[in-house]
Amino acid sequence: MTNILDAPARPTTALLDALAEIVGPGELLTGPDTEPFRRDRSDGTPSGSPAAVVLPTSTEQVAAVVAVAAAHGIAIVPQGARTGLAGGANPGDGDLVVSTSRMTRILAVDAADRTATVEAGVLTIDVDRAAAGVGLFYPPDPASVAISTIGGNVATNAGGMRCVKYGVTGDFVRRLTVVLADGRIARTGHLTTKGVTGLDLTSLLVGSEGTLGIITEVTVALLPRPGSASGVLAAFPSTTAVLAAADEIALSSRRPSVLEYLDAASVAAIKAHDPAWFLPADAEAVLLVQSDEQGRAVVDVEEYAAIAEQHGATLVEVAHYAEALDRLMSARRLLHPALRELHGAILNEDVAVPRSQLSALLRGIEALADELGVTVATGGHLGDGNLHPSICYDPSDPAAEAAAVRAHGRIIELAVALGGTLSGEHGIGVLKRDHVGAELGDVVVGLQQQVKRALDPRGLLNPGKKL
Amino acid sequence: MTNILDAPARPTTALLDALAEIVGPGELLTGPDTEPFRRDRSDGTPSGSPAAVVLPTSTEQVAAVVAVAAAHGIAIVPQGARTGLAGGANPGDGDLVVSTSRMTRILAVDAADRTATVEAGVLTIDVDRAAAGVGLFYPPDPASVAISTIGGNVATNAGGMRCVKYGVTGDFVRRLTVVLADGRIARTGHLTTKGVTGLDLTSLLVGSEGTLGIITEVTVALLPRPGSASGVLAAFPSTTAVLAAADEIALSSRRPSVLEYLDAASVAAIKAHDPAWFLPADAEAVLLVQSDEQGRAVVDVEEYAAIAEQHGATLVEVAHYAEALDRLMSARRLLHPALRELHGAILNEDVAVPRSQLSALLRGIEALADELGVTVATGGHLGDGNLHPSICYDPSDPAAEAAAVRAHGRIIELAVALGGTLSGEHGIGVLKRDHVGAELGDVVVGLQQQVKRALDPRGLLNPGKKL
Repeated sequence: MTNILDAPARPTTALLDALAEIVGPGELLTGPDTEPFRRDRSDGTPSGSPAAVVLPTSTEQVAAVVAVAAAHGIAIVPQGARTGLAGGANPGDGDLVVSTSRMTRILAVDAADRTATVEAGVLTIDVDRAAAGVGLFYPPDPASVAISTIGGNVATNAGGMRCVKYGVTGDFVRRLTVVLADGRIARTGHLTTKGVTGLDLTSLLVGSEGTLGIITEVTVALLPRPGSASGVLAAFPSTTAVLAAADEIALSSRRPSVLEYLDAASVAAIKAHDPAWFLPADAEAVLLVQSDEQGRAVVDVEEYAAIAEQHGATLVEVAHYAEALDRLMSARRLLHPALRELHGAILNEDVAVPRSQLSALLRGIEALADELGVTVATGGHLGDGNLHPSICYDPSDPAAEAAAVRAHGRIIELAVALGGTLSGEHGIGVLKRDHVGAELGDVVVGLQQQVKRALDPRGLLNPGKKL
Repeated sequence: MTNILDAPARPTTALLDALAEIVGPGELLTGPDTEPFRRDRSDGTPSGSPAAVVLPTSTEQVAAVVAVAAAHGIAIVPQGARTGLAGGANPGDGDLVVSTSRMTRILAVDAADRTATVEAGVLTIDVDRAAAGVGLFYPPDPASVAISTIGGNVATNAGGMRCVKYGVTGDFVRRLTVVLADGRIARTGHLTTKGVTGLDLTSLLVGSEGTLGIITEVTVALLPRPGSASGVLAAFPSTTAVLAAADEIALSSRRPSVLEYLDAASVAAIKAHDPAWFLPADAEAVLLVQSDEQGRAVVDVEEYAAIAEQHGATLVEVAHYAEALDRLMSARRLLHPALRELHGAILNEDVAVPRSQLSALLRGIEALADELGVTVATGGHLGDGNLHPSICYDPSDPAAEAAAVRAHGRIIELAVALGGTLSGEHGIGVLKRDHVGAELGDVVVGLQQQVKRALDPRGLLNPGKKL
């Protein structure tokens, strides 16, 4: 892949001086200091060398930075913790990176109204910890929860394992403070649970990947903290069996808090990474189910275990205590490091299909992996129909990378043909930008560009991403 | 109030002929036949005499109608069933009304993927009936559920009593087909539970009150159908007592499906309407609570009844069967007819505040009603902090109407000062348009106008509403 991100202008010394004046010289990085800010955690996505990185500590500083950069016509790339998987935070050469990583204040946690207001750079896990301090709960749990920022989660509408029960990040966002493309500060949304005054600009900003504004403060809704969770891991001899068990759980009135899947290639990679792991290396498919229902988690999980057995599970492990549950779930967390260790690099897919099409999607992925001679390891959120096929390749082998890119496109085509979407929760970034039109069609793509132009007429905010 | 809606142009005979050609002569109404289409169910909102009403039967017809009207520069006012309470569907003189009331096909109900796709003119209750046919459930239940259309519900992001547990209309909208201001057809959103490809135009359209496009088809998410509900009605000697009981329920991990409130003036009006109603006319406050939790509804409601008694309820009626439950809930449904019967007309408020501010809101409303000499009867959704103070007045008395309008503005100011919003679920329409700026501020109002101009540059869609 080549660098397709071109900044419309380059920062001058005068601009850098003005930025240093706003944020302080210690919060303006240039030259080699910008190295860590060049890319997110995606493999193979294009990125460049930013002219500078600013680390503002307040909304007002972000606004002043954007106003100055806009006056100079410089492209601005917002960053949280750069844990994204689609290149959405990658700068192009000469861009100005605005990092929210020093905006880490928890501004309010309101137990009576069940909201928390935090700066964008607060780690998502710290939002939940603050909620826990008053007996409340912030449910969205992207895999990056311990290292990603709430601002980044909102900008990508991040998902996670608990979405199957609780919904995605956007379902919890009440109010945003956002710096617009011209440096004005807007506060959108409502503190209340309901509110229809004005157009829903909050939802428009959620998932906009920094293309419409820089999110600097977030108010999220909180829920009562659930009881401790129980879980079950079940290994199945076939994809058909695992899907049948998952359907029986998902198509009932049960409310699992986690309903995850790992395929045979995923199991093999984890086993290679950790030979002591308790699963047999030849398990064809794994289902991970949790319940955190108040007073029912143990009973629920025993039912889930029984359902797994009825559908032919060859191994069923139940965990009712935190430590045992961690052991069951560790497999899911180890997957990406294990795949990279075994294969070199991965292209992350994030397709979602209506649940009735999961079987067709999995069969189709298997067929095209065979056809193209690539290894695809698939895990993901079976309850949501949102899978993460990881296309594994050796990054030093151009032919292998080309085959991986072909497989990436083919999986996206397959998901769209099945009525699905090319991104359930990771976002578009630069990785999937060229495929958006195939899913959305010309009219919707045109509408989005109309909205983008209305809010950022000069195209300075995260150019080349998402749209 | 005077008519402030001015259409930018008037339909010509050539335009009417072209419209008749598109929809058929029987589906084009002019002259006295347009009378029923002049206003929604709000009292006192400005409205005019439309030049014509078209009743298209397909998305393609709507698109053709809009294209022709736009070519003539005619203002277009979309209508569902005109059950709104803010004048959002009121045409101005010479406008073209596009009614979706003949678009009543249920296109698909998918049990495996838990979605229903319907035309915009389907009654909301029929969406739920279709869902019930496959054991599923469409939860949003605005008071108008039996007479309002799903398209209108989406256009206003309608709420209802069950929102406290299930969320509002927008929480269930997956995908929209919408006719844009220039007659193009766009399909936004995803069939999947998660999806972040593109900007969230679906959420932007939800609640946009016909100002950005005409919604013609809706795909909603469905849930497993809950068991039958149980409920309790409790009468309290004071507002303090009713709020304390409601707090104890709302600030727990319980999940009531209804948590409603009626004040003394509401009780008095219902009692005047139906002297045989079982409540004493001097009850100061009433709480209505339901549970539909699978296998727990009876136990839950017995707990709610005990909580009411602990907080000094003077009358507690529990209902575990549909007929008895209907009898309890009938009071809530009778409220608006009873108020109109007793007082003549009402201005509908729809303010919402963070729940911790409910006491301040209720005390403030009482004080300003005394000050202005108006009768305000307040009921609403205590679980959401969303109240409906009805400002009662005699429409034949200009001084009374003026006082009602003053009280309306003052209640809005109060709610905004308490961190709330001027509309939780009814929408802005023309009734509350002049107050929007006080809540949202200049920057957000400007942003909304930028979005509106991007999607409807000539301002032809529902002019003078919402923004």
